[in-house]
Amino acid sequence: MVSEQFFEDYEVGLSRQSTGRTITEADIVIHAGQTGDFFPHHMDKEWCATQDFKQRIAHGTLIFSVGIGLTATTINPRAISFGYDRLRFVKPVFIGDTVKAKATITVLRDHPKRTTHGIAVERVEITNQDGETVLVCDHLYMVERRAPAA
Amino acid sequence: MVSEQFFEDYEVGLSRQSTGRTITEADIVIHAGQTGDFFPHHMDKEWCATQDFKQRIAHGTLIFSVGIGLTATTINPRAISFGYDRLRFVKPVFIGDTVKAKATITVLRDHPKRTTHGIAVERVEITNQDGETVLVCDHLYMVERRAPAA
Amino acid sequence: MVSEQFFEDYEVGLSRQSTGRTITEADIVIHAGQTGDFFPHHMDKEWCATQDFKQRIAHGTLIFSVGIGLTATTINPRAISFGYDRLRFVKPVFIGDTVKAKATITVLRDHPKRTTHGIAVERVEITNQDGETVLVCDHLYMVERRAPAA
Amino acid sequence: MVSEQFFEDYEVGLSRQSTGRTITEADIVIHAGQTGDFFPHHMDKEWCATQDFKQRIAHGTLIFSVGIGLTATTINPRAISFGYDRLRFVKPVFIGDTVKAKATITVLRDHPKRTTHGIAVERVEITNQDGETVLVCDHLYMVERRAPAA
Amino acid sequence: MVSEQFFEDYEVGLSRQSTGRTITEADIVIHAGQTGDFFPHHMDKEWCATQDFKQRIAHGTLIFSVGIGLTATTINPRAISFGYDRLRFVKPVFIGDTVKAKATITVLRDHPKRTTHGIAVERVEITNQDGETVLVCDHLYMVERRAPAA
Amino acid sequence: MVSEQFFEDYEVGLSRQSTGRTITEADIVIHAGQTGDFFPHHMDKEWCATQDFKQRIAHGTLIFSVGIGLTATTINPRAISFGYDRLRFVKPVFIGDTVKAKATITVLRDHPKRTTHGIAVERVEITNQDGETVLVCDHLYMVERRAPAA
Repeated sequence: MVSEQFFEDYEVGLSRQSTGRTITEADIVIHAGQTGDFFPHHMDKEWCATQDFKQRIAHGTLIFSVGIGLTATTINPRAISFGYDRLRFVKPVFIGDTVKAKATITVLRDHPKRTTHGIAVERVEITNQDGETVLVCDHLYMVERRAPAA
Repeated sequence: MVSEQFFEDYEVGLSRQSTGRTITEADIVIHAGQTGDFFPHHMDKEWCATQDFKQRIAHGTLIFSVGIGLTATTINPRAISFGYDRLRFVKPVFIGDTVKAKATITVLRDHPKRTTHGIAVERVEITNQDGETVLVCDHLYMVERRAPAA
Repeated sequence: MVSEQFFEDYEVGLSRQSTGRTITEADIVIHAGQTGDFFPHHMDKEWCATQDFKQRIAHGTLIFSVGIGLTATTINPRAISFGYDRLRFVKPVFIGDTVKAKATITVLRDHPKRTTHGIAVERVEITNQDGETVLVCDHLYMVERRAPAA
Repeated sequence: MVSEQFFEDYEVGLSRQSTGRTITEADIVIHAGQTGDFFPHHMDKEWCATQDFKQRIAHGTLIFSVGIGLTATTINPRAISFGYDRLRFVKPVFIGDTVKAKATITVLRDHPKRTTHGIAVERVEITNQDGETVLVCDHLYMVERRAPAA
Repeated sequence: MVSEQFFEDYEVGLSRQSTGRTITEADIVIHAGQTGDFFPHHMDKEWCATQDFKQRIAHGTLIFSVGIGLTATTINPRAISFGYDRLRFVKPVFIGDTVKAKATITVLRDHPKRTTHGIAVERVEITNQDGETVLVCDHLYMVERRAPAA
Repeated sequence: MVSEQFFEDYEVGLSRQSTGRTITEADIVIHAGQTGDFFPHHMDKEWCATQDFKQRIAHGTLIFSVGIGLTATTINPRAISFGYDRLRFVKPVFIGDTVKAKATITVLRDHPKRTTHGIAVERVEITNQDGETVLVCDHLYMVERRAPAA
């Protein structure tokens, strides 16, 4: 899906909601395999049973990657993702939890150097099946303007 | 590897360097498969050939996840990772590039609410085989103190 | 993306074009691993070099699965996929080829037994980077009607 | 295993039975990752609990690919698979179901254009642990003749 | 494929040759992911270029696992694999090399304690596309006898 | 982690204990996919229920590869792994079992031909969550000497 949107087309408050995805044991195994992070917090259910959270928890980078992936449904050829701010792990995600991502435009500001582009901030909030927020972050985009800023 | 370190054991300026890892086409395929992000920027070499960067680029979340994974070599049972600040994609990473991560303690500050813990900020800088920085971020940890803060 | 469409909303000739996807060596390795089909046609480049096609070829089930996946972008809660007709492997797909899928509604007919549903046939044509057709099939859907058929 | 068989060696009614394979949550996760089909029918157990089938169902292309893979045990250098007819999803397959494939030669006919080859149709029937058919299809092969057809 | 064979059916000198399999970069990435062994010998092409072997080498456990897998074509319900002796890595395997396995019965001896079983030793020799041996090992089976040993 | 150790630095009796890792259904699925070994012992829970062990068992090569991977935490640039002796599968590993590896230097001997190197044998013992040994083997290393042997 390609949907061309210029900076002038963005509006603060516009939001979109992803489909849900159950985080499986297989996801954790594959993420450990991709990142090389085999810490017992994610991989050793016996050790986890002795800890406060009692069970294996998903890697923070897994929930972040999957959550951002859930929002990656439409290509805007006028926008470039250049980073994230204030990424926070609010609650652990366990095997069998189901996450969704909500993305809301929260800030639109001038680009510090270029009049041809603006900066859009999309707040991403990932929630679990109980409606609890598990991760938040601000996704930063540089978006082409239809007409240069004054 | 477990190495217990209290907040008092951290020092600004201490740094560690990871081993290197070549980012392969397989890594991108597996990351698309894990996240569901099959955007042509990552998956379609014909389309990429028509773009400025001329070739497929790794997902930002892949380089972030792999880079953080490269730093995950020692477990400190006194520290909890709770998020990241100022994550920026500085340069694209292409298939066949080799990345390394350098992690440096840059800030040590009081926890805003708890006297029992401090906040440590570890700057992570991911570089490619030409020594160019491709991604930076600040990794945030809450670390137990040996003795409560004054 | 959810888009509710009743049988009455379908029109013969309506078509949609997917994004492209480069078929990689990793895709073949993962597909062999998923299906257990390690035939030398897909896995042994030395043996392939002695055959007519000279190089490893993608599994037919891989190109079919990926091609159908490329068309799976919008959920229609009123439609159920129940099968395929006339699936044909027209040309081999090699490592590095880039495929796209075009899906066109070709037939709309009454359900043989239910007045509440109709049958929609979507012809899927998968092409490579040279515009050559590599696979075709007819995807069969049972779609709810807004009003019962006469 | 290589077993050379000419068209004259095929007999209608000859059948072979595969070993069984339990369809796991990991298989579905890997198939979503290979195809890009992350529809909630396969990936979101909360949403599935609100649907008629109550639980996640395997992708049709997964059961087809695995089922055909189960039959791919012997290479016949004289036969080429060129497609499938009448592929039907008869019943859903759930996580933990165990499937088997039975393949039976049902039709042997002349090739429409070549006297050097015949067409063999192998009906593949995939069943679950309760003996219920979950998928059927007709696998089409072009097979070399020992001697040209009259 | 199931083929029942009692100890009395084994013969020293009987051998079987597997099909070939090209070892890909994806295989190494997946094996690192499965084992957690991300040593630069396998993962960092820049570092490898500074070493004697000049390029990434496959994990020993990968070649062993794939080689044994190549021999796992026929199930003998009367035999149990219980270990390996004298496993040796004779030559490195590089990305793009194609391996085959040859398995030969080399020893048949009484079970040290049970008269109901014998011990069969199958020497497995894995070679590359140049016919060079890259790995050897002795695969040990305990095999049921048709009749108790004298 | 790189830690240079010459043959003279090794001591019989020195041992190290790995972290734990739960063997998951996903690990078995991925290992079958990597090796091509889809024997029902690992893949078919219905058939397994009819056997002595009642449930699916992990591949021997999986437990071996994972166990050796658990010990691969520190690179010694002066040592080369060249093989294994007396690899034995002592007990089956089931889905959900958690394994750990203990590695102990048991033998230090002269190299048969080179005065510049010695041979170190590291016994690897893999145990499950009940402390039972499931696999043992002797890992063989050729290690550079600081000074030639007399």
